Amino acid sequence: MKKGMFITVEGPEGAGKTTIIDMLASNLAEEGYQVLQTREPGGIEIAEQIRSVILDKNNTKMDPRTEALLYAAARRQHLVEKVKPAIDKGSIVLCDRFIDSSLAYQGYARGLGIDEVYSINSFAIEGMMPELTLYFDIQPEAGLERINQHKGREVNRLDLEKLDFHLKVREGYMKLMELYPERIYKVDASKPLEEVYQQAESKLKELI
Amino acid sequence: MKKGMFITVEGPEGAGKTTIIDMLASNLAEEGYQVLQTREPGGIEIAEQIRSVILDKNNTKMDPRTEALLYAAARRQHLVEKVKPAIDKGSIVLCDRFIDSSLAYQGYARGLGIDEVYSINSFAIEGMMPELTLYFDIQPEAGLERINQHKGREVNRLDLEKLDFHLKVREGYMKLMELYPERIYKVDASKPLEEVYQQAESKLKELI
Repeated sequence: MKKGMFITVEGPEGAGKTTIIDMLASNLAEEGYQVLQTREPGGIEIAEQIRSVILDKNNTKMDPRTEALLYAAARRQHLVEKVKPAIDKGSIVLCDRFIDSSLAYQGYARGLGIDEVYSINSFAIEGMMPELTLYFDIQPEAGLERINQHKGREVNRLDLEKLDFHLKVREGYMKLMELYPERIYKVDASKPLEEVYQQAESKLKELI
Repeated sequence: MKKGMFITVEGPEGAGKTTIIDMLASNLAEEGYQVLQTREPGGIEIAEQIRSVILDKNNTKMDPRTEALLYAAARRQHLVEKVKPAIDKGSIVLCDRFIDSSLAYQGYARGLGIDEVYSINSFAIEGMMPELTLYFDIQPEAGLERINQHKGREVNRLDLEKLDFHLKVREGYMKLMELYPERIYKVDASKPLEEVYQQAESKLKELI
């Protein structure tokens, strides 16, 4: 029986993550691999319910630590109901965002602390860290521009206001690469799509 | 300005907790203290939403760790929205169940581990441990009998099936008393109500 594998993909919006994951998943499937492509909450009913509490626009009083605990709870449920069973059956699981998103966004950029956010996520995942994490690195300005080109509009005031935050997030990912040099592989996402795909695929193929 | 105070009450159902908290709260209020009597989720909208995910009868697949994270999230929100503001204003807060319930029920009786469950709760409460915890101790058999007398029925098969679990919970509380001998005060809840109240009140008065 083939050994399953857990791979996560990280990085800001506008880095091309989704496109590349789609391409990786379909090419691996064509080559005969069993592949599960997913992202939290991944259609898991309990995780969806938790997600809707997080995203409810009326919940303006939500404390950042409440939010971090809710993300960890949804992560746990998605992991045990969907990711782990697939890996146990020998699938390659490609998951769009996982623990590193919480560490970079909430731990570092929101200032809760990487160690602190790691501790609750460690409770949630019980050692099930990904074997490989592809980090799609791009300057926040370039990422935002790419999103906006996509939608056919220019960068607006709101996007610019958030730039500081996105810079912080990128700093957070840099810290994580220092902490996990073996696990996290940086893909230069500023290159043209085909090149980005080649970087991601060749790293993945090393592992399989 | 009066210094606020955080007091929690713990123990199994049937130990008389609710009755005693009612009496303590009204007597303290009569004596001129500002008192907040509460229990999680305490009417806090976000905490109520989280609670309803936990209690949804269709969520049979909920993993014990997901549940523990959700309890910690609801606790966090109730703490920052209701408990902390009251303490800051100088109130005595009497809270029916808090961190020790998670430690005894989920950490010990459900087997997740007291240390593990403590770690996520420590993230949630950021050091806001109660100054005093009144633990209402009663043999599970006696507690169950008391509940059932209340409802005018005998102990049934279901209650008995759960006895093992309740015994485990009590063992859990015993462990917590060893871990926190300064904070947790054991009240012998097998005594008649008036005596139980006297034990609780005199300990509380020592502190105020």
